Amino acid sequence: MNRIKLHLDKKTSSSYEIYIGKAIMDRMGLILNKQKWAGRYICITDSHVLALHGERVQQTLREKGLKIDMIDFPPGEASKDIKTCLHICDQLMAMGADRQSALIALGGGVVGDITGFVASIYMRGIPYIQVPTTLLAQVDSSIGGKTGIDLPTGKNLLGTFYQPKGVFIDLAFLQTLEPQELKNGLAEVVKYGIIDDPGLFGILETRAQEITNQDMDLLQEIVARSCRIKKGVVEIDEQEKGMRRILNFGHTIGHAIETESGYTIPHGDAVSMGMVAASILSERMHYLAAEECERITALIRAIKLPDRIPQSLSPEGIFGNMKGDKKKAGDTLNFVLLKKIGIPFVTDGVPEQLIRKTIGGLMT
Amino acid sequence: MNRIKLHLDKKTSSSYEIYIGKAIMDRMGLILNKQKWAGRYICITDSHVLALHGERVQQTLREKGLKIDMIDFPPGEASKDIKTCLHICDQLMAMGADRQSALIALGGGVVGDITGFVASIYMRGIPYIQVPTTLLAQVDSSIGGKTGIDLPTGKNLLGTFYQPKGVFIDLAFLQTLEPQELKNGLAEVVKYGIIDDPGLFGILETRAQEITNQDMDLLQEIVARSCRIKKGVVEIDEQEKGMRRILNFGHTIGHAIETESGYTIPHGDAVSMGMVAASILSERMHYLAAEECERITALIRAIKLPDRIPQSLSPEGIFGNMKGDKKKAGDTLNFVLLKKIGIPFVTDGVPEQLIRKTIGGLMT
Repeated sequence: MNRIKLHLDKKTSSSYEIYIGKAIMDRMGLILNKQKWAGRYICITDSHVLALHGERVQQTLREKGLKIDMIDFPPGEASKDIKTCLHICDQLMAMGADRQSALIALGGGVVGDITGFVASIYMRGIPYIQVPTTLLAQVDSSIGGKTGIDLPTGKNLLGTFYQPKGVFIDLAFLQTLEPQELKNGLAEVVKYGIIDDPGLFGILETRAQEITNQDMDLLQEIVARSCRIKKGVVEIDEQEKGMRRILNFGHTIGHAIETESGYTIPHGDAVSMGMVAASILSERMHYLAAEECERITALIRAIKLPDRIPQSLSPEGIFGNMKGDKKKAGDTLNFVLLKKIGIPFVTDGVPEQLIRKTIGGLMT
Repeated sequence: MNRIKLHLDKKTSSSYEIYIGKAIMDRMGLILNKQKWAGRYICITDSHVLALHGERVQQTLREKGLKIDMIDFPPGEASKDIKTCLHICDQLMAMGADRQSALIALGGGVVGDITGFVASIYMRGIPYIQVPTTLLAQVDSSIGGKTGIDLPTGKNLLGTFYQPKGVFIDLAFLQTLEPQELKNGLAEVVKYGIIDDPGLFGILETRAQEITNQDMDLLQEIVARSCRIKKGVVEIDEQEKGMRRILNFGHTIGHAIETESGYTIPHGDAVSMGMVAASILSERMHYLAAEECERITALIRAIKLPDRIPQSLSPEGIFGNMKGDKKKAGDTLNFVLLKKIGIPFVTDGVPEQLIRKTIGGLMT
């Protein structure tokens, strides 16, 4: 038997900058022009964002001398499927997009996930940049290169780890957000405070009112702080093999609640319920002090996020969904719990009975 | 504007071994067992290969203590589409395959391309290994991590660069190959001789008869030599940004011929015609000596591969297809030409009129 070794040990760089500011689309145009990641750009967005911002973004970038085309699809999670991907690819083909073209993901998490996925598989990969327009996408999904689409059997079952060339976070987009969309993002900001930044947690506690009133300077500060936490975790664990799992704090039960509600409960609400549940689990397992658990619940309430699970849901249904979560490794169910605010850890040792009891307790 | 840099500069290793031998499935089992790339394996194959080898391969691997399941789909290029991918993913989901699972691509190029693609996107990427059963897949597509599927608008338009954990080349599979399938692989072997290995080219010239008679020792030698060339090119240029393009020798016109024939002309035949055309172009542009051009044509004939393009095809159709080839960068058409046997180069300076004339000349 012959053996031939194919050597692909190398230094790779997928490093990139995250730019955060107010009304930065013109500066993005200058940066794209300077970086020359591609000879042309195709902006992928949904029809909602297109109507709100499409014309302005296109015009701003064209004024900087960039070649821009637009492709849009209907808004919402229902679009995050292979059909939308193929539709985008067909349009890219029709436009003559090739390996010298790059995509711009202009929109929320769904747009970012689809655009990143298409960029990662179109002609075996073309560059893309993220321009997140929701708070949730700005502090979470636009950073870290996780792309994905849903299958009928589950969310994000197909996807890639594929880093963008840059992330441009323009706070100006937040002004057109629905209050619920802002809350979806704030739930993740609360999560960052809980898992990594007691200082951020403190700001949220003391300035909750200004945040829900959309104080732009304060929002820029908490977005930047959140991005720094996310980027730190991604740097250590790009492919979610270990530490990146702490970002799932509140999401194990949160996702299960979302699924059980048939996605009628918004992501931020579900994650908030999940964070409350995970905090209570941490307390009941004697890791987290009762007063810290109470601070978490109080902050979630102050930001007007829910701290109870609707009684209309089935506790057994929620529990069953958790077991179908793709993040399980083998047959164990991994939970992110807390020792303190700022000190999370991953464990597979949470008794099923305690999970059931905690979920049930949040419904009474 | 805040700027945060996300640092993903790192050393990565996607190195792997290519194992070549006769009847090596048992040794593969031992290696899989030792390497522990996954807790279970799902073997993806087509129904043709399943009928010929499925039972034996499964049993051999099970005897080595591996957990193996099988998924199959109809044979042929028509299966290389998103529908087959989704079918495989649904089955993987139904089997409970997760990130601790790995795929085995057991089959020819289509099986390898699809399996690699599914492995690269299922749950954002799971490991896979290549077990190529055709000569073409053994010397070419199983090595280098190019995966892909076709869209209605073109071949391999969706795909990834995603390296396998290992490639196991078992010559025993060649014994059940159709003569045309063997020739499809031999065309690539001839290509390796032409672009990189005058010694291999010489062996092919002097021992053409033994090769077409399937002398197994000789086949193992030329397979190993071909794999060494392919792996050398892939090491230098994993993502086909530069040097890897020399592997397209004969393929620019070859693919155009394949397409124009509606894929009724086998890949190896089309590539042979393309190699003859590229050699004549090289000669006419005064790069390649006439006698070397003649040696190439003579070898192709000796291996019983075609050196003429069927008159039934449209020269303008072939020419038009070339311009739609996705490997074009921007608007220039890149050709791999020869200075000598063993010395290829890439140029975008081939006059269109000369291409037309050369294609036409091979049809008279």
